[in-house]
Order: sequence, then structure tokens, then C-alpha cells
Amino acid sequence: MNEITEFMSEARLRVDASLDLIIPSAKSDPMQLHNAIRWSVFAGGKRVRPAIVYAVGRAFDCPAVRLEGTAAAVEMMHTYSLIHDDLPAMDDDDLRRGRATCHRQFDEATAILAGDALQTFAFAAIADDQTLTAEVRVMLISMLAKAAGTPDGMIAGQQQDLDAEGRSITNAELARIHNKKTGALIEFAAGAGAVIGGADPDEFAALIQFGKNFGLMYQITDDLLDVTQSTEVLGKTAGKDAAARKATYLSAYGQDGARERIGMIASETVSALDLPGRDTFLLRKMTEMVASRTS
Amino acid sequence: MNEITEFMSEARLRVDASLDLIIPSAKSDPMQLHNAIRWSVFAGGKRVRPAIVYAVGRAFDCPAVRLEGTAAAVEMMHTYSLIHDDLPAMDDDDLRRGRATCHRQFDEATAILAGDALQTFAFAAIADDQTLTAEVRVMLISMLAKAAGTPDGMIAGQQQDLDAEGRSITNAELARIHNKKTGALIEFAAGAGAVIGGADPDEFAALIQFGKNFGLMYQITDDLLDVTQSTEVLGKTAGKDAAARKATYLSAYGQDGARERIGMIASETVSALDLPGRDTFLLRKMTEMVASRTS
Repeated sequence: MNEITEFMSEARLRVDASLDLIIPSAKSDPMQLHNAIRWSVFAGGKRVRPAIVYAVGRAFDCPAVRLEGTAAAVEMMHTYSLIHDDLPAMDDDDLRRGRATCHRQFDEATAILAGDALQTFAFAAIADDQTLTAEVRVMLISMLAKAAGTPDGMIAGQQQDLDAEGRSITNAELARIHNKKTGALIEFAAGAGAVIGGADPDEFAALIQFGKNFGLMYQITDDLLDVTQSTEVLGKTAGKDAAARKATYLSAYGQDGARERIGMIASETVSALDLPGRDTFLLRKMTEMVASRTS
Repeated sequence: MNEITEFMSEARLRVDASLDLIIPSAKSDPMQLHNAIRWSVFAGGKRVRPAIVYAVGRAFDCPAVRLEGTAAAVEMMHTYSLIHDDLPAMDDDDLRRGRATCHRQFDEATAILAGDALQTFAFAAIADDQTLTAEVRVMLISMLAKAAGTPDGMIAGQQQDLDAEGRSITNAELARIHNKKTGALIEFAAGAGAVIGGADPDEFAALIQFGKNFGLMYQITDDLLDVTQSTEVLGKTAGKDAAARKATYLSAYGQDGARERIGMIASETVSALDLPGRDTFLLRKMTEMVASRTS
């Protein structure tokens, strides 16, 4: 196993252990709700956002224990958004992370509440993190709320994505939507690792830029895989962007254009990581890994 | 106008001003989302929870400005829960606060996202409150997350309420459900006012008890009004508990029994407010007002 695969696997184990401690047991009341939360959280996600928190933290020699609450928080926020986006009133999807979506496995009411609860847990995970000063926790919570909310975060992006279905939008609009819908939370992960690690303002700005680029690149690879891979490989319904007449980077640039952009952004992302005295090896390797991902 | 009516009206104006500052303009993008949030938030709610924050704060001579973020937060958390509870997959209701529910006025996807955004804003309102120390903010966020989440908060209560539909439950179970579904957030409002006001541990405990009693009393009056008042007076569909075969305090104790319990709990609530050197006049008056409310 090479170093980056090993790191990703370690990050996954670590965040899964945190999540298992935070989320109530499936045997505790209300059982259906806790079962549903666990169904979606422990469905074998790639844990890319927590891995970014850990990898940025490591660049600042930050002990992993101080990154755990925030890594869990960003994954819970992400999972809540998947559960709600998959609902019949939104993308109406049956498959996620290789298994039935939350509302298909349980019911719609439970899925709505499971998502709601995960958002609550995300903020609690940071507020209750005794390894961080109150000042750092408040700053992280504020950053997370902006990244997850509206007008500049994930919820705004999801609304704009729904609004754009079936109508043609400019490439600039497309980028704005995805910067919010996918980018904001990835940018938060990078910025949060920098805050916890004690980055100076220049380093913080560089890592925010890293997060922006990484998020954009991640979204383009997502759009590419939606077209080029099977439902089986993706663990979620393939080809659904085209079916929903969604504007994507593929409809904007075509497959070759999208591949070209991925390569371009990957180099930009890596070059933004030249931080004197900081070991950004893992972040560079993660960037390469995502640029060439096949699932 | 008597003192309590005046106070309630002042609290309403004050929290509405805060909410108007926090929630993005209906003319800002994504407009449909911001419109939907404003539709539900500015539908003329009674603002009971913010009023509790203010009234408890006043008992501790706390300047109103330090209570504003938290008062707005608890109202946004409450409004998000109403939007989601009204969804077709949950209580499927058409009317709330005298107007169309969010998903009826807009659509389901927008209503889900509007609720999601309000939860995000609730945590942000406290995290960004510069009038409070970081320590106090973190404590309030942690308290709010517990009150709003699972296993002991609002989301757990809503799930248990849905689970209980159409089956018979014990009176103890009924009380447990409502303590979570309605009580937890009211208890938070009282406890938060005490924390911000600098209550000592005994005072804090007394106000938590006040919140518990007040919440229980509020729920029983709600159940009573559902049976005795018209849809027009309530601004939400009357008689819907019976229609959904929901366990309520009315089905458990009957109208007379429920009225008796309201009176009993009101006296207990008032007697828990005997705090030496603290002016709890407004809290006592609010208790009497809720005990005899007709809408």
C-alpha cells in the first residue's frame, strides 16, 4: 500500500471511530432514527472531507486528537446533505454509497429527521470538543455555518442547482453553483485544519485556495464519473445528471475538455501548496489521487 | 395595555428586528429560498421562546443586547422544526401561523432547504454573537444542540411522536415525548437566559425547572386548543391530533383533567420562581398568560 492509500485508510478508520462515539447506538431510543442515521453515515463513504482536515492538520504538526471533532463534524454535515438531496422532493434517488438511500431503506419522515439530526450533531461535535479553546471552536462553528448555509454555502448551492434544472446556464453560473454546493464544505475542511493547526494568515489563505481548487476539481471528476462509470462502480445512480437535464461540467466542456480542466486545476492546486516549512506531501498526493479517481 | 402584553409585544419587535438582520433579503440569490425562509419566519408567530430568553435575562438585569442572538436562534430553530413537521411526509399540513405552510406556498424541496438553512442560522446566530464571551457561546451552542437533537431533544421527540401515531401509549410515554418535542427548546430558552445573565448554579437549576414546567404547560394548552378552538383562531388546522389519532394530553386526561393539570403546573411553575433578589415578575405573568391562553 502506498503512503496516500494508507493515510486515507487511517483517516477513514479514525473518523469512523469518532462518528461511532458521537451517534447514539442503534439500540437506543428512538431506534428507527438512530438506525437511519447510522445506515447513512456508515455506508462506506470515502471520507474525503475528514481526510482533508487530517492532512492539513498534519502539515502543521497538529496532533490528530485535536482534529477529530471537526473531521467528524464535516462528514456529518456532508452526510446530512446527501440524505436530504436524495429525497423524492429533491433528486429522488434510490441508491447512495452502494446501498438504498435513507428514505428508501426507512421512510421519508425518518430520512428528513436523520438529516436534521446530523446537522445538529455536526455543530455539537465542535462545540463539545474539549481539545480546542472556546475561541477556536466558535470560529470553526461560524465557518461551518457559512459553508453549510445560505447565501454562500451548500444549501444555497443546492437550491440553485434545483432552480437550474432543465434550463441552460452559463459556465460562470455553473461554477458559482458548484463552488457553493460542493466547494464550500471542502474549503471549510481545509480552512478548519489550518485554524486548528495554527496557520498564519498567509498559510490560511493558501489553504482556503487549496480547498477551493480541490472542491472544483472534485466536482468535475464527479460529473465525469457520472457519465463514464457504471452505477455499480459509483455506488450511486450513474447518468442521472443527463437524465435530469442538469448543467454539469460535462455539458459545458465535454469529456475531453473536462479532463483537461481537471489536469489544469490539479497543477494549480499542487502549486498553491508550496508553504515554506510545512510538509504538504499528503495534500499533494490527495490532489493527484482525486484527479485520477475512477470511482 | 398591561405590563405583560407590552413586554411580549416589545420582545416580538426586538426578535423580529434581529431575524430581519440575520436572514438574507428576499431579493438576494437564491431568492426562492430566502423568500421561503422569510415566509415562515415572519408569519406572525407569538415568539414565546425568545420572550422567555428576554424575561429570564431581565430577571438577572442582563442588557437586552446580549440576549438578542440567542433569542433569534431559538426562534429560528423552532421555525425550522415547524416547516419540517408540516411536510407531507410528516404531519402533512396546509396551514401554519394563519397562512399556507412553506411547502404549500413554495414547494417541498424549497421547504426542506428553508428548514435546513434556519437550523444553520440558529447556530451561527450564537457563534457570531460578539456580545458574549467565546466560553458562553460554546456552552449555549452545546445546550442548543442537545435541546434540538437526539436522543434527548426535539428531533427525538418528533420521531417518537410519529412512531406513536395510531397506537396507544402510556401517559408517562406521552410526557416523555412532549418533554422532548416541545419542552426541550423551551427549557433551553430559560437555561440560556440564565447562562447569559450569569445565574449561579441554584438559580440555573430553578430556571431549568421553570422551563420544564412551562414547556409541559404549553403543550397541554396546545392540545386543549386543538380541540376547543377553530382553525381560524389557531392559524393552524384544528382537530388534527384526533384526526391523526395522536396521543395527546386530551386523550389521556380529558378536557377537564387537562384544564386541572394546567392550573396545577402553573402554580408549580410560579412557585419555582421564588429567587431571592431576582425580579421574576415577567416570568410569573408569562406563566399565567400561557395557562389561560385562548389561541
